[in-house]
Amino acid sequence: MEPATSPLLTDLYQITMIQAYLDHGDTQNAVFELFVRGLPARRGFLLAAGLDQALDFLENLRFSPVEIAWLDRTGKFNAKLIDYLHNFRFTGDIDAMPEGTAFFANEPILRVTAPLPQAQFVESRLINILHYQTLVAAKAARSVLAAPNKLLVDFGLRRAHGAEAGLMAARASYIAGFAGTATVLAGENFGIPLYGTMAHSFIEAFDDETAAFEAFARAHPGNVVLLLDTYDTELAARKVVALAPTLKAAGITIRGVRLDSGDLIALAKSVRGILDQGGLKAVTIFVSGGLDEDSLLAFARANAPIDGIGIGTSLTTSADVPSLDCVYKLQDYAGTARRKRSEKKATWPGRKQVWRRYGTDGRMAGDLITLESHDKAGEPLIHPVMRGGRRLAPSPSLDEIRRHAKHELERLPEALRRLEPGAGYSVEVADDLVKLAAEVDARLQARAWPGAKT
Amino acid sequence: MEPATSPLLTDLYQITMIQAYLDHGDTQNAVFELFVRGLPARRGFLLAAGLDQALDFLENLRFSPVEIAWLDRTGKFNAKLIDYLHNFRFTGDIDAMPEGTAFFANEPILRVTAPLPQAQFVESRLINILHYQTLVAAKAARSVLAAPNKLLVDFGLRRAHGAEAGLMAARASYIAGFAGTATVLAGENFGIPLYGTMAHSFIEAFDDETAAFEAFARAHPGNVVLLLDTYDTELAARKVVALAPTLKAAGITIRGVRLDSGDLIALAKSVRGILDQGGLKAVTIFVSGGLDEDSLLAFARANAPIDGIGIGTSLTTSADVPSLDCVYKLQDYAGTARRKRSEKKATWPGRKQVWRRYGTDGRMAGDLITLESHDKAGEPLIHPVMRGGRRLAPSPSLDEIRRHAKHELERLPEALRRLEPGAGYSVEVADDLVKLAAEVDARLQARAWPGAKT
Repeated sequence: MEPATSPLLTDLYQITMIQAYLDHGDTQNAVFELFVRGLPARRGFLLAAGLDQALDFLENLRFSPVEIAWLDRTGKFNAKLIDYLHNFRFTGDIDAMPEGTAFFANEPILRVTAPLPQAQFVESRLINILHYQTLVAAKAARSVLAAPNKLLVDFGLRRAHGAEAGLMAARASYIAGFAGTATVLAGENFGIPLYGTMAHSFIEAFDDETAAFEAFARAHPGNVVLLLDTYDTELAARKVVALAPTLKAAGITIRGVRLDSGDLIALAKSVRGILDQGGLKAVTIFVSGGLDEDSLLAFARANAPIDGIGIGTSLTTSADVPSLDCVYKLQDYAGTARRKRSEKKATWPGRKQVWRRYGTDGRMAGDLITLESHDKAGEPLIHPVMRGGRRLAPSPSLDEIRRHAKHELERLPEALRRLEPGAGYSVEVADDLVKLAAEVDARLQARAWPGAKT
Repeated sequence: MEPATSPLLTDLYQITMIQAYLDHGDTQNAVFELFVRGLPARRGFLLAAGLDQALDFLENLRFSPVEIAWLDRTGKFNAKLIDYLHNFRFTGDIDAMPEGTAFFANEPILRVTAPLPQAQFVESRLINILHYQTLVAAKAARSVLAAPNKLLVDFGLRRAHGAEAGLMAARASYIAGFAGTATVLAGENFGIPLYGTMAHSFIEAFDDETAAFEAFARAHPGNVVLLLDTYDTELAARKVVALAPTLKAAGITIRGVRLDSGDLIALAKSVRGILDQGGLKAVTIFVSGGLDEDSLLAFARANAPIDGIGIGTSLTTSADVPSLDCVYKLQDYAGTARRKRSEKKATWPGRKQVWRRYGTDGRMAGDLITLESHDKAGEPLIHPVMRGGRRLAPSPSLDEIRRHAKHELERLPEALRRLEPGAGYSVEVADDLVKLAAEVDARLQARAWPGAKT
């Protein structure tokens, strides 16, 4: 069974709750919003990503007869629920920030308006889809900001957490500005440019390193990038210089070399020297091996002659921040605003809009979170994308999303473009929201148990 | 396109290298081993997991005509490679540690012996499968050791990194000793016990908390677990006490309550008191909300009256250690041992076995890594599981794997059973391996460039 398309990829309580809602007749419209409760210290902003996959999920949501029969056999559900699932579809509305939009804590990036059983059910997978791509897009943006003029490539499939993570990390990092990925399926699925060279095992399989270089070059004359650090990096660079005339005679140009271990700054400098002295000034240097955005900043500060960088595990696992406090909360049911008041987890009720102001320099100057009905107070970030379970328009292309993200990164305040964001960003909550929250609390209080703590 | 079953879920260089191998006639048998280079500070041991999915991948590996046509259209590959892919299958041998086996740094958990193009190609997805489940099994084992007598449940689908991670985290944590998961698909796919209660949104959708409790109880009379912390936890506990007689009259027993926020130790104690005073001594207390193995240890130290724990994001992202340095390295090609010598990444060559000794107390006393041909030196951990691309026997059941993991945890030295493992575990490298590594180095040296650094 493929996990990515099964409606059973959900938490048990979602189905349990549907049953209770049906039994109790609670099928009126509910409003849920998805947002991140707080930003981690090393994330000055986030980049929304994954909406296209979220909409695919909603449009294709249905239970197969086999899945329904299995649920029935568990004995956990009543006949009414089982019957209901046969025609279960998502028929609701979605409003969302476009993919690639920079956003901050407590700003909804997606709103679901749908009959309560539907709106409740989609929670687990919606978070699962949007959380991961947003996490990786935000992580990738840090590398893009740290090395704006370098070729950045996602190398992280192998240690990504499973198949879908490997694929979607390629998409999310491309949105954030990476040049491409090594993950072939991301080329096939999304048209993302593919990059790749050779592994150490290729070199080791030959008895002679130069023979390995030559065999590879002759097999791939159009894309010769040679891996230098299997045995001795500088020695390998000299072998490349010595091999170049032979290849040139065969009409083959060496495009680049890759370094995957050791002191990459020092090695890049010495290899650059060897290549330049050998007349290979056009050969580029690509590095990889346990790198992250901090490495990129160190390369830039050392003025290392590095042209491209493969970033793997740190990107696809978002190693320093492997999760965001991304939640999906009920804001309104049957026309009445709702609010959770749990300790440190209280939420703002109602249907919301986020307005963004810009300074005279074109940079983002502050956001205001309001009720949806609030007067215009800047550029609105949340837009309708689905009505009645159908997309209002085809999703933007990945390159359109990527251009939007690029524009967003350009408009970020300078403080947020640093790897250690100092000053925060102003996100204000409008009076209408504060007032509504107080009203919800007062209503709850009035209904509370006699003698309740206040 | 479903990522989990496409052969295109690989790194571009794997296909690039196949083409070069074919062009150069390098199709003899290669031996690759998969291992973890070093253990993170907070992991005293790891638990092998994911072998069953790895074998599924190998048995089902093939390119569809559509995938081959797409690869052809990229223009990156020659006709020989494209032709070769039509009949590409994995026809090799696999030797591996059984799932649930405790292992340590540099110990191979899987060996591939196959024609070089095949053995090379499977690298990316084999690591992707085995790395993640092993990562989560090792993380889950820490909670099992910290709270041996508690009901532990995986709640982490939503912030797992994508669909497959959500599903496989349930499998890996069940192997390590969790009681079950909230992820429904893991019940359907693997028969893992399912757990679930209700969300805050369920409570909020009702105008009255008691009404929400009662509606839920009537809809699920067989599994009534009520969530207490939506507004005021202690107040909600009193509502549960007040509601119990009404439910009892209807033949419904409240099984448990769940707390998801606040000071869980203090709240568990006060809620326990309220329930006990209200005659609900049999009602269990289940907690959740940002918990990890350190929380569990704190609960135990405080003697908190907590019966079960839902562990989410920290488990499924292995938050403190979101990746392992898991690699897949060429050890032998065409009957000659191979070795990478990159700085800090040198590997031991050849086909290996891991032997484990036990003390008189039955606990693990030390491992020895040797060549496969070494004399018996303890219990061998690596066993044949696939020959000629086919499993030698059906894989063990998940419950058999779980029993094996339980036995392994029982046999761990006491120092490794702590969350902050102090003393390490003895893993020795046998003389035959050291000698072979020296021979490989001497051979490489002899072929090196004149004037090479030594």
